[in-house]
Amino acid sequence: MNYKIIKNIIGWVLVIEAAFMSPACLVAVVYRERAGLSLLFCTLLCLLCGWLLTRKKLTDKSMYAREGFVAVALCWVVLSAFGALPFVVSGAIPSYIDALFETVSGFTTTGSSILPEVESMPHCLLFWRSFTHWIGGMGVLVFLMALLPLAGGTNMYLMKAESPGPSVGKLVPKVKATAVLLYKMYLVLSIAQLFFLLIGGMPVFDALTTVFGTAGTGGFGVRNDSIGGYSTYLQVVVTVFMILFGVNFNAYYFIACRKPKEVFKMGEVRVYLGVILASIVLITINISGMFENAAKALQQAAFQVGSIITTTGFATTDFNLWPSFSKTILVMLMFIGACAGSTGGGMKVSRIILLFKSIAKELDLVVHPHHVKKVKMDGRVVEHSVIRSVNVFLASYVVIFALSVLLISLDNFDFTTNFTAVAATINNIGPGLEVVGPTGNFGAFSNFSKLVLTFDMLAGRLELFPVLVLFARRTWSK
Amino acid sequence: MNYKIIKNIIGWVLVIEAAFMSPACLVAVVYRERAGLSLLFCTLLCLLCGWLLTRKKLTDKSMYAREGFVAVALCWVVLSAFGALPFVVSGAIPSYIDALFETVSGFTTTGSSILPEVESMPHCLLFWRSFTHWIGGMGVLVFLMALLPLAGGTNMYLMKAESPGPSVGKLVPKVKATAVLLYKMYLVLSIAQLFFLLIGGMPVFDALTTVFGTAGTGGFGVRNDSIGGYSTYLQVVVTVFMILFGVNFNAYYFIACRKPKEVFKMGEVRVYLGVILASIVLITINISGMFENAAKALQQAAFQVGSIITTTGFATTDFNLWPSFSKTILVMLMFIGACAGSTGGGMKVSRIILLFKSIAKELDLVVHPHHVKKVKMDGRVVEHSVIRSVNVFLASYVVIFALSVLLISLDNFDFTTNFTAVAATINNIGPGLEVVGPTGNFGAFSNFSKLVLTFDMLAGRLELFPVLVLFARRTWSK
Repeated sequence: MNYKIIKNIIGWVLVIEAAFMSPACLVAVVYRERAGLSLLFCTLLCLLCGWLLTRKKLTDKSMYAREGFVAVALCWVVLSAFGALPFVVSGAIPSYIDALFETVSGFTTTGSSILPEVESMPHCLLFWRSFTHWIGGMGVLVFLMALLPLAGGTNMYLMKAESPGPSVGKLVPKVKATAVLLYKMYLVLSIAQLFFLLIGGMPVFDALTTVFGTAGTGGFGVRNDSIGGYSTYLQVVVTVFMILFGVNFNAYYFIACRKPKEVFKMGEVRVYLGVILASIVLITINISGMFENAAKALQQAAFQVGSIITTTGFATTDFNLWPSFSKTILVMLMFIGACAGSTGGGMKVSRIILLFKSIAKELDLVVHPHHVKKVKMDGRVVEHSVIRSVNVFLASYVVIFALSVLLISLDNFDFTTNFTAVAATINNIGPGLEVVGPTGNFGAFSNFSKLVLTFDMLAGRLELFPVLVLFARRTWSK
Repeated sequence: MNYKIIKNIIGWVLVIEAAFMSPACLVAVVYRERAGLSLLFCTLLCLLCGWLLTRKKLTDKSMYAREGFVAVALCWVVLSAFGALPFVVSGAIPSYIDALFETVSGFTTTGSSILPEVESMPHCLLFWRSFTHWIGGMGVLVFLMALLPLAGGTNMYLMKAESPGPSVGKLVPKVKATAVLLYKMYLVLSIAQLFFLLIGGMPVFDALTTVFGTAGTGGFGVRNDSIGGYSTYLQVVVTVFMILFGVNFNAYYFIACRKPKEVFKMGEVRVYLGVILASIVLITINISGMFENAAKALQQAAFQVGSIITTTGFATTDFNLWPSFSKTILVMLMFIGACAGSTGGGMKVSRIILLFKSIAKELDLVVHPHHVKKVKMDGRVVEHSVIRSVNVFLASYVVIFALSVLLISLDNFDFTTNFTAVAATINNIGPGLEVVGPTGNFGAFSNFSKLVLTFDMLAGRLELFPVLVLFARRTWSK
């Protein structure tokens, strides 16, 4: 294991974190908040630690899959550990474990909160809290790659480990160019949303933080009722952009290249939009009696479906009070998640498609043992290793899920709370049902459970393997 | 597709069903019950239909995987459809869908019931209800194979489709001899349990039905409080035999061959016993405050753990009132299930072991992409196709599970009820939590939900693929 390169990468991540913290310091200046001093202190601390870790020049730049996975997992842990400090130092969240939970929830774009209310928190800290979503949505290491001149192999392994979805695909070869391109598209979409929010009359601070929450598919709000207090126009804008940020960014690449037809050929995008449409229709019918008219029910259904499938987690209404059928649809959407290559979480639509295809293939094999058919997606044969990896992903997912539910059940909450708390964190959604429903929060859990759920958020964001690799004996053997 | 051989096999299954129904007619004679006439009528009906279907001599005895899977799935459907008739004809269960649910629950050794109380039902019908467990435990087609001189290939495909566990393994070659041997061991164990129950003072009728429920890991009782009203000695006997019937029958084969050491070399048996032990210890600690002393808590924990992991579903106490942690352990045990090659349901311990091993292998591949290690079990290399099949099994399982929860959520029960109702049926357990807890029943569900859960019981018992194959287009294509 090349520990030095891992140390070096962690150092650079801290330097970047300092850079990312500084806008929040500016916000403190605008609002003349004392908490800004804590932010400044933490910014300088990140810079100092980053400098110390990157001071020595690297002689051995060799890096393989093992180093890539370990580096990504550790970077995210360090990023969160330092990101939590401003909340503790300023006294806004006195318990470090609570602050860590909140920060990991931010960076992993989960949006689960331990805070019963947020409006009393200083603006600069709210800004930092929401900004972590925007940073985490695209990935810190992708950002690093866009900036740093690392070796080609290094980049690929880092990107493989951090990027969402079953495989990075054709974007891999030109990693640096791709990283820059991704950030550009991310920025353009964010600015577009900001524009539509501002012309709808949303205050600048609210608009910025809402964009961060939407773009990263995070879900932290700056109001106690999340998005519920804003006008219908603003809620619709958020709905549309949540769904847009859940689309595979390859689609925007095609649009940028003026090949819009290619987008509709992407099986994943079609299934993603199909699932959204079907869910909205079913829920609208199911809840229509609860709203004054069908249009309102449709708008609420669309918002909640968009919020959950993209794993954003904003809320405009307490869906915990909806009928069981609608709630079950939402719970299922939690697991499906957004498209691979988007900022969303969950298992990813393409994984679900591949799972269905591997079931169909197995049934074929049962019936016709000697006809071998290859699994295809978008017209191309899917490599055997990808299918195997998707299936093992599901197995790992189920194991981590079950163990987490078991561990947090020690707090003696009901099964629905425990199940949806794990679902909401491992899929990076935000709210679950019952105690952790849209009007509840995660503050009632014990510190032990909070750590378990923190682990789940990280495992979910990094798609299990990088985090699991940390616990495998062979990772650390020579 | 060779439809004629399928028709023929279904015919033989009906003849056997008639034979299996006749003991219940005898019980009616003993207790002088009028319901016996309904039973006699149904017995003759089975015989008649069986005769009609097997009348024509088969010319083409060719049979492949496709026919095997379809035959097994259809046999179980027909078996249940006819088995439900005595309840309807006698008027004991007026609704046919309810009777079908109850009968499928019997044959699949689930033990979920739609009846709020059972003590008012005639003895002969209670006997038939429990006897379906004993028949279903070992499998009807295995019985058929022990009797009928079918071609070698035929047997293998039927056995593959009906037998529990990832692969039939080395027992396959001599299918007929194996089938006879399995039934012998099954009979010996059943008689042993009957002996221990009778010397404990259990009435003969109760002892017989309890043996049927235990041996088949079914769980139908003949008392409203299941096993709760019997003495501690009897409860312990049932505990021990439940666990014994959940062991892979290969173990008894080794014991019969005087190779007891081989049993402890079986990874599956070791893990199975280890999980049982760990669960008992954890639950005993967790519930100790609820009972007068630790011994009582231990005994109750052991009974419930044995009942759930073997998917029997007998109850001695309302574990729905236990703390969340204990309930979550029980829910996890529902999914693990018993050993492959036992009469129990669930995913099977060996599948869980293989899933863990495939996760470990994938992590190895992530870290060391060029080191290829084969997955081994009990010292032998596990074929790639078995691992793939286990992984796809999990995927199919999750899909069926999620869709079932969604469909029954239309009845608007709480999430825990819906989740555990599906868990209890697809894993062939019996009781779940909340509405379907040990003191509840499945009667409150709509007919639609009952059909969904009936499907789940069949799918679970036949381990998904035979049932799924019925819905695959390519099964019916030429």
